[in-house]
Amino acid sequence: MTTTTADAADAADAADTDSHEAARLLEHTRSAVDPGLRDTVDSLPASIRRVAKYHFGWEHADGTPAAGPAGKAIRPALVLAAARALGGDPQQALRPAAAVELAHNFTLLHDDVIDEDATRRHRPTAWTVFGTADAIVAGDAMLALALRLLAEDRHPASAAASARLAACVIELCAGQQADCAFEQRGPGEVSLDECIAMATAKTGALLGSACALGALYAGAGEEETAAMDAFGREAGLAFQLIDDLIGIWGDPDRTGKPAGADLAAHKKSLPVVAALGSGTEAGAELAELYAGPMTPGAVARAADAVERAGGRDWAQLQAADRMGRAVQQLSRAVPDLDAAGDLLALAEFVTRRSR
Amino acid sequence: MTTTTADAADAADAADTDSHEAARLLEHTRSAVDPGLRDTVDSLPASIRRVAKYHFGWEHADGTPAAGPAGKAIRPALVLAAARALGGDPQQALRPAAAVELAHNFTLLHDDVIDEDATRRHRPTAWTVFGTADAIVAGDAMLALALRLLAEDRHPASAAASARLAACVIELCAGQQADCAFEQRGPGEVSLDECIAMATAKTGALLGSACALGALYAGAGEEETAAMDAFGREAGLAFQLIDDLIGIWGDPDRTGKPAGADLAAHKKSLPVVAALGSGTEAGAELAELYAGPMTPGAVARAADAVERAGGRDWAQLQAADRMGRAVQQLSRAVPDLDAAGDLLALAEFVTRRSR
Repeated sequence: MTTTTADAADAADAADTDSHEAARLLEHTRSAVDPGLRDTVDSLPASIRRVAKYHFGWEHADGTPAAGPAGKAIRPALVLAAARALGGDPQQALRPAAAVELAHNFTLLHDDVIDEDATRRHRPTAWTVFGTADAIVAGDAMLALALRLLAEDRHPASAAASARLAACVIELCAGQQADCAFEQRGPGEVSLDECIAMATAKTGALLGSACALGALYAGAGEEETAAMDAFGREAGLAFQLIDDLIGIWGDPDRTGKPAGADLAAHKKSLPVVAALGSGTEAGAELAELYAGPMTPGAVARAADAVERAGGRDWAQLQAADRMGRAVQQLSRAVPDLDAAGDLLALAEFVTRRSR
Repeated sequence: MTTTTADAADAADAADTDSHEAARLLEHTRSAVDPGLRDTVDSLPASIRRVAKYHFGWEHADGTPAAGPAGKAIRPALVLAAARALGGDPQQALRPAAAVELAHNFTLLHDDVIDEDATRRHRPTAWTVFGTADAIVAGDAMLALALRLLAEDRHPASAAASARLAACVIELCAGQQADCAFEQRGPGEVSLDECIAMATAKTGALLGSACALGALYAGAGEEETAAMDAFGREAGLAFQLIDDLIGIWGDPDRTGKPAGADLAAHKKSLPVVAALGSGTEAGAELAELYAGPMTPGAVARAADAVERAGGRDWAQLQAADRMGRAVQQLSRAVPDLDAAGDLLALAEFVTRRSR
């Protein structure tokens, strides 16, 4: 065995350990946060509760109990891990963890209506089951509930957390608006900078907010909180870049989606926009392909064009760069990175996941 | 001139005075609240701001300034008047006043999408101009902004106000959900109690919340705040009853809508549901008419049937009864009703208005 292979094996082992660690953290977060989250959702008026419980995978459409997947709990896990990293008691941060999960699910409910997506977490989306009116209204109520949870908390950081989460929701809205607006534009009419700003608003902002809320609940000052927010944002952007790569080159057996699903949908994901803006011949080829219908043959040729135009390499480098910046920000918030092991494991997990 | 006529003339004079007083209050509220409201809306990301400014009537669709009507400011006026009635300084309550106005306009944006209403305040609705995606997202952001305004306030009552407004929004959502659900049911399948509960949630809750927020910002205790909330709710229900009467018998010249507009739309408004549930022959006639298309002839016959079934009298008596209860609740919050003159003038105004 050469040194290089041994290094690679070590790295793989470390990644596996991180991955197991993250899986354990996520499972632990679910069991810590879910009781309070369920109680809160139970406080909703019946007509709205049934939509929320269906969306969370706790009930079938007919109201019978379901043990469906309720998402990976990454955002609440970040809240608890950030609180712990700064010496706080995660048990005291269960409310902001639930609030962040509610805010995330509010965006999913509305995004599915807006994007007319029919499937979420392997189930029909709420609007396809209950209609768009009920899905919009349930999303509204879940957003109000998230902010109510914080406003009703007597923790000294609750007002600051509430203001921060509300500001983040406004940013998420701007991100979703930009995403929709970009869909209307032709290939080549969306710049890479615009695309990165959109991904930061739509994905990075809430991961950043989750970390910031954990910091606030640990009694952190403004500077530490801002650094935690920046850590989550950078990790969130790395996550989005990896997600976009998976959307083109992901293994269909692992993702549950056909190969090149994002290309088939003409998505202007980050690697695609990087390729389109590369000024290369392959970029021009891609623009031509994107102007027409995406047959399976066109999808394969487009994936090849993105790669030849440098979109794949760019996204991989960017993701690594963002993770580097994330760790740098984290070290500003938590000088002794040993205390931030959970946060690092979660960041590794979201940027290494296969689907 | 007989005594009775003189009394009636006095009453009319008093009503005129109240009406002038209310108009003055509303105008004053607009000029006190608008600068802060505009600054807050200006803080939204550009893509969302343009939808919000259009919706408020401050801008045309192309972004040029407009001096359009931005609504009557009844809810912010209630916040300021409630604060004043309890010895608070209305100047200190401008934030909750703006927050309540934002929350109200968030519901309008989403309700127009859900109900597919094409006109609001004599202008095309935001979704018809910007599309449903942008209208949904702008509504979401305005709700978040309302709660952010309160969370960022350093007033000692801000957390309680924020929790109360968030809880109210959840109730508004339940009211809107019920309204949509009732539309799907046949005539006779919605009970009067359900209908009153829906109107309380959809209209009463936010008027109640406006009064409660004003009370909280005046430093009121739980009991006074609850009484103020109940005052607003009862006045809100009276308002809805009058609104429903106007929807059937309102003067087209004053309402800007054709006579019997609510009947033409098969609306299950309170007088209609009362008539349908009256067990009278006229009630059965109305049910039959509502089962078919509402031609102008059918509208005239339906209005007559509602009246003969006692729906009109019931609604008028209920409105008077609710106003009585409102005043009773108000006297619990403000033992010296002289201090509550503004609130009474506003309550009179909303229940006497002609459109």
